[in-house]
Parts: sequence; C-alpha cells; structure tokens
Amino acid sequence: MTLKVAVAGATGYAGGEILRLLQNHPAYHSGELEIGALTANSNSGQKVSALMPNLPSLAGRTIMKTTPENLAGHDVVFLALPHGYSAEIATQLPEETLVLDCAADFRLTNEADWVKYYGNDHAGSWPYGIPEIPGRRDVLAGSRRVAVPGCFPTGATLAALPAVARGLIEPDLSIVSITGVSGAGKKAAVSLLGSETMGSLKAYNTAGRHRHTPEIAQNIREVTGEDVRVSFTPVLAPLPRGILTTITAPLREGVTTASAHEAFEEFYADEQFVWILPAGIQPQTQNVVGTNMCHIQVEVDEAAGKLLITSAIDNLTKGTAGAAVQCMNIALGWDEAAGLPTAAVAP
Amino acid sequence: MTLKVAVAGATGYAGGEILRLLQNHPAYHSGELEIGALTANSNSGQKVSALMPNLPSLAGRTIMKTTPENLAGHDVVFLALPHGYSAEIATQLPEETLVLDCAADFRLTNEADWVKYYGNDHAGSWPYGIPEIPGRRDVLAGSRRVAVPGCFPTGATLAALPAVARGLIEPDLSIVSITGVSGAGKKAAVSLLGSETMGSLKAYNTAGRHRHTPEIAQNIREVTGEDVRVSFTPVLAPLPRGILTTITAPLREGVTTASAHEAFEEFYADEQFVWILPAGIQPQTQNVVGTNMCHIQVEVDEAAGKLLITSAIDNLTKGTAGAAVQCMNIALGWDEAAGLPTAAVAP
Amino acid sequence: MTLKVAVAGATGYAGGEILRLLQNHPAYHSGELEIGALTANSNSGQKVSALMPNLPSLAGRTIMKTTPENLAGHDVVFLALPHGYSAEIATQLPEETLVLDCAADFRLTNEADWVKYYGNDHAGSWPYGIPEIPGRRDVLAGSRRVAVPGCFPTGATLAALPAVARGLIEPDLSIVSITGVSGAGKKAAVSLLGSETMGSLKAYNTAGRHRHTPEIAQNIREVTGEDVRVSFTPVLAPLPRGILTTITAPLREGVTTASAHEAFEEFYADEQFVWILPAGIQPQTQNVVGTNMCHIQVEVDEAAGKLLITSAIDNLTKGTAGAAVQCMNIALGWDEAAGLPTAAVAP
Amino acid sequence: MTLKVAVAGATGYAGGEILRLLQNHPAYHSGELEIGALTANSNSGQKVSALMPNLPSLAGRTIMKTTPENLAGHDVVFLALPHGYSAEIATQLPEETLVLDCAADFRLTNEADWVKYYGNDHAGSWPYGIPEIPGRRDVLAGSRRVAVPGCFPTGATLAALPAVARGLIEPDLSIVSITGVSGAGKKAAVSLLGSETMGSLKAYNTAGRHRHTPEIAQNIREVTGEDVRVSFTPVLAPLPRGILTTITAPLREGVTTASAHEAFEEFYADEQFVWILPAGIQPQTQNVVGTNMCHIQVEVDEAAGKLLITSAIDNLTKGTAGAAVQCMNIALGWDEAAGLPTAAVAP
Repeated sequence: MTLKVAVAGATGYAGGEILRLLQNHPAYHSGELEIGALTANSNSGQKVSALMPNLPSLAGRTIMKTTPENLAGHDVVFLALPHGYSAEIATQLPEETLVLDCAADFRLTNEADWVKYYGNDHAGSWPYGIPEIPGRRDVLAGSRRVAVPGCFPTGATLAALPAVARGLIEPDLSIVSITGVSGAGKKAAVSLLGSETMGSLKAYNTAGRHRHTPEIAQNIREVTGEDVRVSFTPVLAPLPRGILTTITAPLREGVTTASAHEAFEEFYADEQFVWILPAGIQPQTQNVVGTNMCHIQVEVDEAAGKLLITSAIDNLTKGTAGAAVQCMNIALGWDEAAGLPTAAVAP
Repeated sequence: MTLKVAVAGATGYAGGEILRLLQNHPAYHSGELEIGALTANSNSGQKVSALMPNLPSLAGRTIMKTTPENLAGHDVVFLALPHGYSAEIATQLPEETLVLDCAADFRLTNEADWVKYYGNDHAGSWPYGIPEIPGRRDVLAGSRRVAVPGCFPTGATLAALPAVARGLIEPDLSIVSITGVSGAGKKAAVSLLGSETMGSLKAYNTAGRHRHTPEIAQNIREVTGEDVRVSFTPVLAPLPRGILTTITAPLREGVTTASAHEAFEEFYADEQFVWILPAGIQPQTQNVVGTNMCHIQVEVDEAAGKLLITSAIDNLTKGTAGAAVQCMNIALGWDEAAGLPTAAVAP
Repeated sequence: MTLKVAVAGATGYAGGEILRLLQNHPAYHSGELEIGALTANSNSGQKVSALMPNLPSLAGRTIMKTTPENLAGHDVVFLALPHGYSAEIATQLPEETLVLDCAADFRLTNEADWVKYYGNDHAGSWPYGIPEIPGRRDVLAGSRRVAVPGCFPTGATLAALPAVARGLIEPDLSIVSITGVSGAGKKAAVSLLGSETMGSLKAYNTAGRHRHTPEIAQNIREVTGEDVRVSFTPVLAPLPRGILTTITAPLREGVTTASAHEAFEEFYADEQFVWILPAGIQPQTQNVVGTNMCHIQVEVDEAAGKLLITSAIDNLTKGTAGAAVQCMNIALGWDEAAGLPTAAVAP
Repeated sequence: MTLKVAVAGATGYAGGEILRLLQNHPAYHSGELEIGALTANSNSGQKVSALMPNLPSLAGRTIMKTTPENLAGHDVVFLALPHGYSAEIATQLPEETLVLDCAADFRLTNEADWVKYYGNDHAGSWPYGIPEIPGRRDVLAGSRRVAVPGCFPTGATLAALPAVARGLIEPDLSIVSITGVSGAGKKAAVSLLGSETMGSLKAYNTAGRHRHTPEIAQNIREVTGEDVRVSFTPVLAPLPRGILTTITAPLREGVTTASAHEAFEEFYADEQFVWILPAGIQPQTQNVVGTNMCHIQVEVDEAAGKLLITSAIDNLTKGTAGAAVQCMNIALGWDEAAGLPTAAVAP
C-alpha cells in the first residue's frame, strides 16, 4: 500500500526541508510513500526547478495552490503555513488524514497563554511532537494530528529536560538561544537582509516577548508538574541554519559535572537523536546542520552556583521538518529514524 | 562478500567528507562495505567523537597512524593525504587494492607540467576520475588506481567540456573560480582564519600560478586534441563550502543562447550528476552543498562576443570526496550513483 | 560662510554612508558645512536613532519627507534615490545648488544605451564623477551637477584605465566583479535575505544584462576614443560590503608584469585614493572597507596571453558615497581628500 | 612638544587597531603625537604594506623587533603582546613612560585570582582602564601605567554597572557574551579557521573557566563593595568583530523597565561612549563596529523575575585599542574623546 503525502507551504524553508527529507526517505524509494500535492500561495504555478534548485529529483513538479481541495485525497499532510492560516486549513482536512502542523496553532494547551502571545482565538491543542519527552511516544503513536514543536523550544526543552526531571536545578531557567536567520522564514524583510545580518548580532523579542517562551515553560511543566520561571533571550546571528542554546539555572546541592553528565546520559540512553557529548566537547551548530540530531553538553559552574547546559540543533531539521518526519514515522508505526540524517555536512 | 575500506587522512576535510558519504552508502548498510582503518598522523590515537562530532555513527572509532601496515588488508583505500606523501604511501599498497588518491600526485600525464607546478619528481599518472569526460568510464571500470580530480578542475572542466567539444568557442578560456575556505584544507594558517576570511574577498595564486591550471588544460586537450589557453583566477570568498566558476571564451559564429543551451543539455543527457539549469536560472553554491551535483548555466553575450558558462559544485563533495566515491562505485561495478546525495541542504 | 547640505534618501545604504562621511568631515566640525534636511519616503517622521543607530551624533535628527520643498534652501543636495525618481526630484532643484546624484539617471551620455538598459526616457547626462579619469577634475571643478558613478563601474574603470590608456591590452575585457550584498540596497527581497546569501555564491544579470555594462564601456571609450568589448559578470557573495573585480584581457606584445606594474604606478602617481599594491600582494576587500581607497594589482599571465588586473573597493564608499563626497570637495574647491577615510576597519 | 608613541605587537589585531586609531588622531595630524617604533617578533623586518594593507598612510614603515631597546626613547608605549611576555617587557620600560598594556598581566588586583586563572606569578596590578567605572578617571589622570581591560569584561561591566550600583538586581549575574573571531587574536589555529567558524556557533571556556570571569567580578565588586556571582559563557560566532553581551539577574522589587532605563540613562548621563538606546531598540554589533561606543538596552522580564541587559561593543575598539587610546588621552590630560570614532561602518 502506498501512502500519499502532501506538503502545504512547500516553497518555504520548513516545506522545502520536509521535501528534502521525504525525497530521501526509504519509504519513498520503496514505493510505500508517494509525494503528492506540493502547494503554496504566491508561488503556485511555478516549477520546483525554479524555486528550489537544491532538490533536483523533484525539479519537474509544479506547485499547486494551497486549498483543501488540492490537499484532499492524501494520507499524510504536512502543513508548513503561517500561524492562523494553518489552523484554518487544518480544520478542513478529514479526520483520518495524518496532519503534521509546523505552525504554532495547536501547540499550546493553555488558552490564556495562546491569547497572551498570539492575540486571537485559541484553535485548541494537538499531541505535541517532541518524542523525547517521556510519555510522548505513546500519545503520538497512531495519532492523526501532531503539533510540530517550535525550533527554540526543541533545543531548549531537550537541554533542560534531564536537569529538571532529575532535580539537578531550581526551576528558574535563564535561556539564551542564538539562531541562524532561516529561523525567521523565507519572507522579505529589511532586517533580515544579508547586509543587515552578516557581520552582526542582535537580541530580539526579548524579556519574555518571544512566542516560544510559553511553549518552553509548558514542556518543562509537563515533566515536573510544577511551574517554572523561564527567561528567554533569542539572538540573531550570521549563519543560515542552526541554534545554539545556553541554559543556566541555580544548582541544587551535591550536583557535580560528573553526576550531571551521567544523569543526562541515562535520561537519553535510548534516544537516537540526542547525543550527550563526551566531557570537554561543546556542541557546535555545524556538527548538526541538516541532521535530526541534538548535541548536548552539561557542566557545573561551582563558583557561580549554576548548572550550564548547552545544546545545538538545526532549526529547520530537528527544529522543524525533521521533527515532523520523526512524528510521521511514529504515528504511522514506521521505524522512527527512517529518512532522518544523523551525519552533518561539516564544515 | 564484504569489501573493507580504509581512509588515510581521515581527519582532514576530504577524509571526513569521504566518511560522511561512506556511512550513508547503501553498501555499508547492506554489509557489502565495511569501514576499516581510519588513519591520520598528528590526530592518531584520538576518537572520531572528539575530532568529527558531525559523524555520530562513527563516534567510537579510534584514529590509527597512517602507515602501509595499518592500510594493509583493505580492498579499497582512499588517500586524503598531502601531495607527495600520498604518492609515498600509494606505492606501498598492493596492486589488487583499489586506491583512490585525492592528492595531485597522479593527476598530470605530462611530466613537464608536473615539474613546473610541483617542482619534484613526477610519480606518474593514474586513470583520472571525472567520469563525465567522454570515454572516462571505460578506463575507470575495473581500474585499481584512480587519480581523483582537483576541486577547481572539476567545476571548470564540467563547465567547459560541452563548449569545447561542440566547437562553440575558441580554445581561449578566461576562468574565475570563487571558492569557500574549506578548499584550503584543515590546516592552521593566519590567512585562513575566520577573522581574515569573513567579510573579505581575495584572489590568490593568480596569473597561471595555481597548480590546478595545467590540470584544467589537460582535461580540455583530452577532448579536443588541441592546445587551449587557460587564464585561471581563483578567488577566496567567505563561505565554508562551494565553488562558483565563471568561464568566458570567444564565441564562434552562429552560436545562440538557445543552441548553446541545447548543446549542453545533449552533451550531458545521460549524466545524473550534471544539471543544465533551465534558462534564466543561475547556479548557486547553496543548491549543491553536500551533494555530488554540478549545476551549469550557459549564455551568449552577443555584444561582448563571448560565451558565458557558470557552474556550481561543492568543493568537498563533487570536487573531491563525492568524485572519489563515484569512481569507487564505477571501479567496483556498482551503481555509479550509490551513496551520493543530489539534494542540497539549503538554505 | 556655512554651506547647508541635504541628503535625500538618507535612510538607504548610500544615504547613510554619505551621512557617516559628512558627520566626520572637517568642514562639518569647523562649521563650514551644516547638515540640513535628511529626507526619505516610508521612513519619514522617524528618528535617526531608530533607523541608523550607527550614527549616534545624528541620533536626535528627524527624517523628513523627500520633496523639492524640503530640499530647498540647501547649497548642496545629495540624491540617494531610486533611478527615475532621482531625475524627477533633480529637475526641480535650483541651478545654483550643487546636486550630486547617486542614481544612474544622468550617467550615460548615449541615449541609445540609456533606452536599451533602462527602458524609459533619457534624462540627459551630467559631469561624471570618477575624478581619477584623466581630464575629469577640470569638468567637476565648479560644476553644480555631478553624476556619481555606479559601484561596479568604479572598481572596473579604475582597474582598466591604465591598461587601455597605455595600450597594454586589446580592448576586449572579461570582467568578473564579486560584490557584497549591500550593493543591492536596503530593500526587502527574498533573494537577498541573510539565509539566501550567506554560504552562497551566485552570478546575476549576466551576459551583458547588468546596467553597469554600458557605463564601464563609456568610461573606457572616453579614454581611448575607441570602442571596447566588455563582458561583465557580477557575482553576489556573502559579505556586507566590498567589490573585488578581476579583469582579463588579451595582452599586447612586450608587456611584462614589471612594465605593467610600473605603467599603473605612473598612471596613478598623483592619486591619493588609488594604491597600486606592491608586487605579490593581492587586493582584499577587508583592506578597503569604509574607505575611499581602490587597491589594485596587475600581472601578466604569459602562458594564457592575458593581462590580469584585480581591484578592491568598498561599494558604498569609493563606490558611491565616498565618490560623492570627493566630487563635492572638488566642485566646492575644497581639499579633495577632506573627510574621506583611507584606513580600513580590518579585520 | 611632540610625544613619541611606540606600539609593541603592532602586527596583531590589537596593535593594528591601535595604529588605525593613532593615524587618525588629531594629535597625530597636529604634530603633537609622532608614531615611533612599531615592533613585533616573527613579522619584524617586514613593511606595513605587506602586513596591514588596510593602513596605507603607514605603508612604508618597517616593523622592528620587540625589545626594550627599540621601545626606549618613547613617551608612550602601547603593549599589545601575549600575556606574560607583556609583563616581561613592561618591567623594563622607564617609569616616566606612559605604558598601556593590552594584555591581562596587570588587570587583576587579587593574587589568588591571578594564580587560579593564569597559573604563574602575579606581576601586580596597574590602574584599570574602564574610565566609565565611577572614580576611575581620577586614578587614570596622570598615571603612567594603565591595564587596558579585556574585551568581554568591558561589554559585561558597562552593562552590569548601573544595575548593581543602583541596586536593581541581586548580585547573581548570568552572562552570555557572543563574540566575533578576531577576539581570539591573529594566531593560526585550526578551530579558528574560516571553514570552522563560518556557519557555526560554539560555546568555549565555559562554566567559569574563561580568564575574563574574575575580571568581571572584580569590576562589580569595586562598585558595590560586595561579592557577586558571575556565570560567564562566551560563545564564538561567525563575524569578524563585535561582542553582544546578554545579562540576566534576579530583579529586585519595584523595578520596572521604565525605572531601570532611567537609572541607566542617569548613570551614564555624562559618558560620551555609552549610549543607552531608546526603548525598543536592541544593541546590534554592526552599529558599533570600528567605534569606541558601547550600546546598551535594559528591560524587565516580569514573568521571569529578571532584569535583562544587553550591550554591544567592538572587541578590538572599545574592547581593546579604543579603550587604550581613551586611557592615553586621559593620562595625558587630552580631550578624552580625541581620535575615537563613534559612527560605525554599517552595514
């Protein structure tokens, strides 16, 4: 049996990355997965060759308009659409279709959080797609709706989880996440021009204003059952892809670098896409570019009384499209790692 | 039967890229190919996890010393060593071993060229590994020695070939090749520091001094049987990977953009790794990063009386390691495209 | 007496660079020059502090609307406006005002060139502002209208001039100019996003289509009195500022690297802003960033029968705003070098 | 009277930046300051034109060997030498010479700090050169020895000072400082190659190991008289110059964004080189490149209970060479701002 897959918003960065992964997926090569409709809005009618020459195997495909009709008749639909528009399309898709939404619409469980950060009606919440959060896989298996996590929440949550779950720190996180510019999407804006971003560093949406803040807090709460303070500072840096996250939090007594490292290794012992690096090696974004990996390091800063956790992910792969494909694999009962690269194109 | 493969110089950029491709090769996953000795010099004794954290599947492997003994007992040996040292090791390997040399030692057929550009004894010449040069595949099939081409010669030769072979231009090429800094290798040098290369552009080894000049000319001569003038100007640009080559040459009468484009498409009609882009789309290095592809465009500049050809490759993949694996596939009688990515990690 | 200076289009890259130079100009500090109206369109009403925090000394200034009324009452007006709109404003300014136009509107002397490349009515031509072209200073001195040259024509013309004027080459130039992204202006466009331009190289407006092509040819013709073939290939590279130009042309008999180098040094012996680098040192864009300098190197490629000339400029300084200030200085009879940096911020 | 100035270590990044500032200093142009010996070690005997073509006005100068003899007979000596070597040279210079040491040797007042972080004998401490620390100018005026601060401590101290001095926060700072690669100096190292640093982000010397940690703590203690906890995480980012620092610390009751902003503005009301940006505008490194400015923003994150302070400096200017020149100006009784740019080359 062949499953037919559509990608809505196929010409944006998330959509393009989903396609890059799908065209390399073993199920695509075995014929179990067929790439169906690729849709967009302003780009509809154009060829993939003109829009995404990095995908030669799909060069001849033509982009269709994003409509429920064009997305009908597919077994799996990836939505890589702007917030709001995503929910609008999502609600028109059949229940039996596996829908993986890369927008924020269905991520937040708390309506007040949604209203505060997004300002409009809460569309509801779907099973949230970080499979590495304990208990998540049971929810995702067989689900027909998945809220794919945000890029910052992925890097921050995976870094923070073992520390909060194992009680290594107080629930008071200072998070600085430095991101490449593709995180802002493929959308014309002066502040994102090469001339403005190369050779420069800038914090933005600071002091709790970034919409990923409540998502991070929600993930922590899910594990600890307690409230957590999250100070989140995103920084734009001159690279195309990659997020480096640094987390500091007050250290609980008795924790050493060795014990923290061991706790992290144990916590992720069964995870294929999380690598607690050997002591002394810091995560570096170039080592995860294009992969579904999250590299993590953890250390105690005795004098400062802090635990320092650092993580590196590719915002478009593990941070978006890779997570979406990983969740598709789980939801369909396939090998969770199928089609997901672990070796990065470095340097 | 399982073929055992060694990589000498495994911790440099070419060696690391060969490993990235091998660990993803279908023969590796099916068990037909086994990754044996990984060798280096100053890095020997260290773990892959410490040196190349971008390759988690090989993280536990230990780097050995580069010696003929450590390379013995392998069916295939990739040499990613400095010029000169490569020939020294190569001559100590058994005849029946498939040796793919990424250094320059065995590329030039003309001893005078070698002496002029490299200044020492000519080690000889091996079958040269650009399979897209007409007639090459017959030579490479079954060969046990392959001289993997240089990165600049690959981008320039693939761009120039159809034009010279079809007589579109006079044999008088002005080539400017702009390269990312990984082309200079993983070797400490002040002029290659991030601070010196970011935000800057510089030509180097100009006016015929670059060692890839005679290699380009040799490739053209092989096809036309005639001498060719090659002006070659390499430029260092602030990106990690990728070569963009521009070639201008005096146009022969009657050639139009349409006829040139058609000639290029016909010339490469059977090639999987060369893509003559649709008219109006220029090659862009980000669209080939990490792949074995060469993207090409060709146009007539009527007023200037020139043909303009542009090509983009990844210097470490199609420009080195990808070519090496492609030649291995041909030499072993495997699917030529096995394990070679065509979809780039972009942006 | 105090001259009042206005900058129209003050919030774009050219306008901002003019302001950076003016606020550092000795006449500004001595009170001979007053910075008057700063105008823009969509940004009018905003403070400089919000738009250009790199200029703290002007932080409190408010941007006005670009109108002839707001530009009236100034002795000097810099126009840093889009093509077409510039001519429209220019024609409404008084004759006695010194107007320096950074757009293309008044650069081309040949109406047919204008119509072919810009497609609308030719506004006419003004004294062209490359003072280093022999005879130019006489025209610029006392002039009240100056057509500030394009960035590519500046780098290419300064590199080519001595070679064509001294008969070192045939009039058949193959020019490749690699530019930073600020050359495309401060205008939202997907193809100029940081994510699209970092880590990538791409030729554009190739094969004679770039509008700077006829401007380069016009400059050469002015010196030689003869037609010239110009193949011009601009390449977009991942840096904010800087243009590296490489020119190859057929060598005339008897020319050596030494004689060419000497001819270049003699040609520019009296120029403060052109530096023929010592033999063996290639121009590098980081060494001219933020300055009004043009660094040049010249070499003979005997085997290829070509002269190779390379030049580096900052597209926004010597390529636009620096040239404009230099021309202002000349037109006003001031020290030509006043307020023009020669030392670059490197690395 | 003319003061003669020497620069030891003139060919490194700090030394080169000192030269860039000196050749633009009004005292140099008026003849009150003469640039004397430029010294280095491996580069001695070479011309400035070959080593620093960004400084054409000094092109003809020859680099001498760094020896006490070559530095003798100067009124002012800038030391831009490696730690340890700097102290060795410094102690051989006459007492009446104004010596500005850009190395760490004389920065730390606490011997235990020195031994812990540098591991060898403590050379002592000199007047520390952040003039913006209250009371500092009195110490620096007339001093003949100045310890020029480290780049990270400059950005972090200027950001933290008003908050600790005005009691806005608890003395428990989480500092993440993201730096361009020139911060690591002009020294060949594989980890600093363009290929390794472009397109990548990496924390280093983490968890209290960076030598600038005790220097930051010392500066805070000087103002508050109390101990402070400093968690300091430096991150290497792909840009040549610039440091963006983010500081979070527990907020004291009653502090609002408005009151914090006002406190910061008052604290630095008389400072020419510190700019508290208007509310809503974040510091961006490109807006300070090449200048002696520090741009700062401060905000309350109510939900997280944190004060967030961000600052941007150029590591080589305000972070090193600019501070050195500023201290020279103060020590000599000159205009403190002389020769120090405030307008950045942006974009």
